[in-house]
Amino acid sequence: MFNKIGIFGKYTGTQSWELIERLLSHFSNKKQVAYLDKITCKNFPADKFGVDILGRDDLLSSIDLAIVVGGDGTFLDVARNIANHDIPILGVNLGRLGFLTDISPELMCEMIDDILNDSYSTEKRNLLEVCISSGKKKLHEQVALNDIVLHKGDSPRMIEFETFINNKFFNSQRSDGMIISTPTGSTAYALSAGGPILDPDLNVVVLVSINPHTMSNRPVVMSADNVIQIKPNDSCIGTARITCDGQIIFPFDSKNQVIIRRFPKLLKVIHPKKHNHYRLLREKLSWGKKL
Amino acid sequence: MFNKIGIFGKYTGTQSWELIERLLSHFSNKKQVAYLDKITCKNFPADKFGVDILGRDDLLSSIDLAIVVGGDGTFLDVARNIANHDIPILGVNLGRLGFLTDISPELMCEMIDDILNDSYSTEKRNLLEVCISSGKKKLHEQVALNDIVLHKGDSPRMIEFETFINNKFFNSQRSDGMIISTPTGSTAYALSAGGPILDPDLNVVVLVSINPHTMSNRPVVMSADNVIQIKPNDSCIGTARITCDGQIIFPFDSKNQVIIRRFPKLLKVIHPKKHNHYRLLREKLSWGKKL
Amino acid sequence: MFNKIGIFGKYTGTQSWELIERLLSHFSNKKQVAYLDKITCKNFPADKFGVDILGRDDLLSSIDLAIVVGGDGTFLDVARNIANHDIPILGVNLGRLGFLTDISPELMCEMIDDILNDSYSTEKRNLLEVCISSGKKKLHEQVALNDIVLHKGDSPRMIEFETFINNKFFNSQRSDGMIISTPTGSTAYALSAGGPILDPDLNVVVLVSINPHTMSNRPVVMSADNVIQIKPNDSCIGTARITCDGQIIFPFDSKNQVIIRRFPKLLKVIHPKKHNHYRLLREKLSWGKKL
Amino acid sequence: MFNKIGIFGKYTGTQSWELIERLLSHFSNKKQVAYLDKITCKNFPADKFGVDILGRDDLLSSIDLAIVVGGDGTFLDVARNIANHDIPILGVNLGRLGFLTDISPELMCEMIDDILNDSYSTEKRNLLEVCISSGKKKLHEQVALNDIVLHKGDSPRMIEFETFINNKFFNSQRSDGMIISTPTGSTAYALSAGGPILDPDLNVVVLVSINPHTMSNRPVVMSADNVIQIKPNDSCIGTARITCDGQIIFPFDSKNQVIIRRFPKLLKVIHPKKHNHYRLLREKLSWGKKL
Repeated sequence: MFNKIGIFGKYTGTQSWELIERLLSHFSNKKQVAYLDKITCKNFPADKFGVDILGRDDLLSSIDLAIVVGGDGTFLDVARNIANHDIPILGVNLGRLGFLTDISPELMCEMIDDILNDSYSTEKRNLLEVCISSGKKKLHEQVALNDIVLHKGDSPRMIEFETFINNKFFNSQRSDGMIISTPTGSTAYALSAGGPILDPDLNVVVLVSINPHTMSNRPVVMSADNVIQIKPNDSCIGTARITCDGQIIFPFDSKNQVIIRRFPKLLKVIHPKKHNHYRLLREKLSWGKKL
Repeated sequence: MFNKIGIFGKYTGTQSWELIERLLSHFSNKKQVAYLDKITCKNFPADKFGVDILGRDDLLSSIDLAIVVGGDGTFLDVARNIANHDIPILGVNLGRLGFLTDISPELMCEMIDDILNDSYSTEKRNLLEVCISSGKKKLHEQVALNDIVLHKGDSPRMIEFETFINNKFFNSQRSDGMIISTPTGSTAYALSAGGPILDPDLNVVVLVSINPHTMSNRPVVMSADNVIQIKPNDSCIGTARITCDGQIIFPFDSKNQVIIRRFPKLLKVIHPKKHNHYRLLREKLSWGKKL
Repeated sequence: MFNKIGIFGKYTGTQSWELIERLLSHFSNKKQVAYLDKITCKNFPADKFGVDILGRDDLLSSIDLAIVVGGDGTFLDVARNIANHDIPILGVNLGRLGFLTDISPELMCEMIDDILNDSYSTEKRNLLEVCISSGKKKLHEQVALNDIVLHKGDSPRMIEFETFINNKFFNSQRSDGMIISTPTGSTAYALSAGGPILDPDLNVVVLVSINPHTMSNRPVVMSADNVIQIKPNDSCIGTARITCDGQIIFPFDSKNQVIIRRFPKLLKVIHPKKHNHYRLLREKLSWGKKL
Repeated sequence: MFNKIGIFGKYTGTQSWELIERLLSHFSNKKQVAYLDKITCKNFPADKFGVDILGRDDLLSSIDLAIVVGGDGTFLDVARNIANHDIPILGVNLGRLGFLTDISPELMCEMIDDILNDSYSTEKRNLLEVCISSGKKKLHEQVALNDIVLHKGDSPRMIEFETFINNKFFNSQRSDGMIISTPTGSTAYALSAGGPILDPDLNVVVLVSINPHTMSNRPVVMSADNVIQIKPNDSCIGTARITCDGQIIFPFDSKNQVIIRRFPKLLKVIHPKKHNHYRLLREKLSWGKKL
């Protein structure tokens, strides 16, 4: 039973705002309590709707459901923000079906009504967290829903690093980098780099090397309970980067240590009752339909 | 604590037999009870060793440990046979390290002594079973440790079939076939066909299409608890085949239905204490060592 | 300037026949001489059209243009037949655009009129020929437009063979087989097996191994003037097959030698003036359009 | 007949310098005229050898053979420098066999004597040149032996650009970048990105996209006589880069146009008589030997 709804959207373009207006007016008619995310309202005259506009911290302590209107990129941003709270999230796409935003604009109000009437399914998705440290000093910590990516950055040269799993040596590699992806991220960047598709309910991660020098390097799927530790060597100078969901960037070099593990909390994604993950895959990837 | 040991080996070539002789003489010195597998003795004068030679059924009801001397192929054969019993298995390779036969000839006696002295680790591996039926009639049932493969067989044309997961439509495809592989099989045929490497402790299977017509077809990793059902269409005539571990073959056609699921029992594989799966991967695949 | 036209079509289904009727009636109105291929007429009452129906040999000695109505499969069949004659060929597809049959049913009459009025472009495509021999005795010779494929056939085991280029040892491999593809075939089976796309005007072939055991095996592009010789070893027993364009099949084994080289004649493919190969690629492969 | 030899080497490390000393002493005994490259001598007391040390320009106008002692990286650097002169080049590797540096240290003096006695083979290799311009103004021009690479650089986001071939639209793509590789470069970075191996005598280039968003994107092999034009869109801001042989870097953005074509001159690579390209491939890639 959801009572207080936070609305988040893509703040560039006008398409998301039209949908948000429609949603606000729908909620107003229903006397449904809703709040607006301040960042979302950056470019729009949101005041006229008579809805409370809250900064992220206030908003997250006030709501019990997050509705994201935008593409998968907007969804990822909000998901990382609510990761530490126990707030379920659902996504409305702006036209083109997304893997995360699986409610279409046409059916938005109807489907959200169903969800508010307790007709929905909840899916729990793994998150990752990366910690970059120098000796015993933590430099950066960050959560990701799709993937943590090590990348050579602006350098034309490959980087070289060792990977340890639960403190056991796994391998060393020379490559453009490596993607550590959740099942959610397996249909995003990891797929472009040749990774497999992982069913979203699996407690696994996949390690996909980017343009590895060794031809026998292959994606490796392992338990998400593993602690993945990366030790960059001297080739990682200055330009090397860690990216979270392709949105947050940190530099790293050979003096740093990178640890990636499962984030202790799960993200609760809300779907309409008739949600079908395989149908989504078939549609997004143009897979074969019934013969 | 293992008391009664069954010895299985490759029955072609003489290399396995030399090792088996060494092993028998070692056991004889230790007054360790051992039995010989009848098929293994096909081409060798095994009588002179004064060891009981038993047919598979008798053997499997008499032993509490199976030692396989041979390549991964011999191991697979024995593994399928003991799948239904609760007998642990260990493999001695004939020179070239195998993924399954990880005890080298040089260290064989020493390592087996350790194991008999209760110094070992046990790894549980998933098995699959396939059932091919026609209407309500079961035609064939078979267990596999590595993989179940659908293949067009002798036909130059691709086959076309639908896949259902837990009775939900997954996709249809036109391809040369599809591999359903366990983690154990992920370093075998599935790897040649572009599949990812799966850590052996995962309860997953991977579906890898063979030369799929659709370019967006990709390996899919899913829970091994799923029931995978395949409905071949009229393109599967006469020549199409189901193969188990590349060793057992059944024909199938459009009138058949194929169901693949996890075998209810797990295979217990015995390793020496210092067994290290990632080292095995690094050595077999020439992956990078410590920098 | 084309005067005597031979019409070939897919003889199963009725769709091709409707187009052929339309074409015959168009030619009749124009008093354009045309002949019908006998095999094409197998299932249709073609006599009523008052057009000569000729067997392949007679037909090929009578015409100076071949029009194929069907899919790429029908085109391949006719192309192999006319390879040794100097007859240009053009293809009308049955609905779904083909790489070879690039004239759509809607524009068929109009475009063929243009072509008969000398408004067209001619593209010359390489063909391959395979010769399977035993000692000095030739067993089979066959031409192919797309590809020559070695395949393990009905066996569950990989085959092993050596490849020589111009009598120099190239490599040995264990695999399910190998595709030797022309540029024309590079968008067909070779593409499913991971091969690159080759521009049709290149005088090259590509060797694409099918599920190779060695992970460093990769497609190799080389001059079509090379003579490719394959020496199968004892693993090629009974079930191994050579396939031409996926349509003609020959068995081979370790006692045979296989030689593949460029067929000395080129196939002349006729296209409408506005034919654009890259547009065809973009449409068939869903590649990105202008931004 | 080579009379005046220029010696180039890796200027970091001491390994190349030991070989250069050996070579100089060998030439001194034979009264063979040789010059040293100034950059090569940066870190070494080269004066004591009584050999002329020349800057690149003077050196290149004085010699009729370039000997490179180092890895493939050093070879690439010198090759780009001599591209515009008509000077043949040969490479001595520092231990590990390179694709370009195919003379081993052990056989260096013996093989170079053979070559000076006119016992050698000459191979001509294609080079590429890239021109980055803004409107009608040329910003950068650069030659490459291996490859020209467009890359997103430090950005976590993919870049988007259109490709034209001979002024005809080819496709648009969203990816991390694209490699345009010569046959020489096909065993370098392009191989890591999934490209095919191209025989070195082919007049072709291959376009290999890096982590393309579209799954039907594949390496495309086309004539090296084609003019390849790339039009970046607004996604190419600030961080996007063009790299030549992984050694020379230029920034580019949506206001620039990139043109890649074959460099009008060929690089003459000198090999010992018994040079065998396929043996090199087999050794470097661990391909199967004779059965």
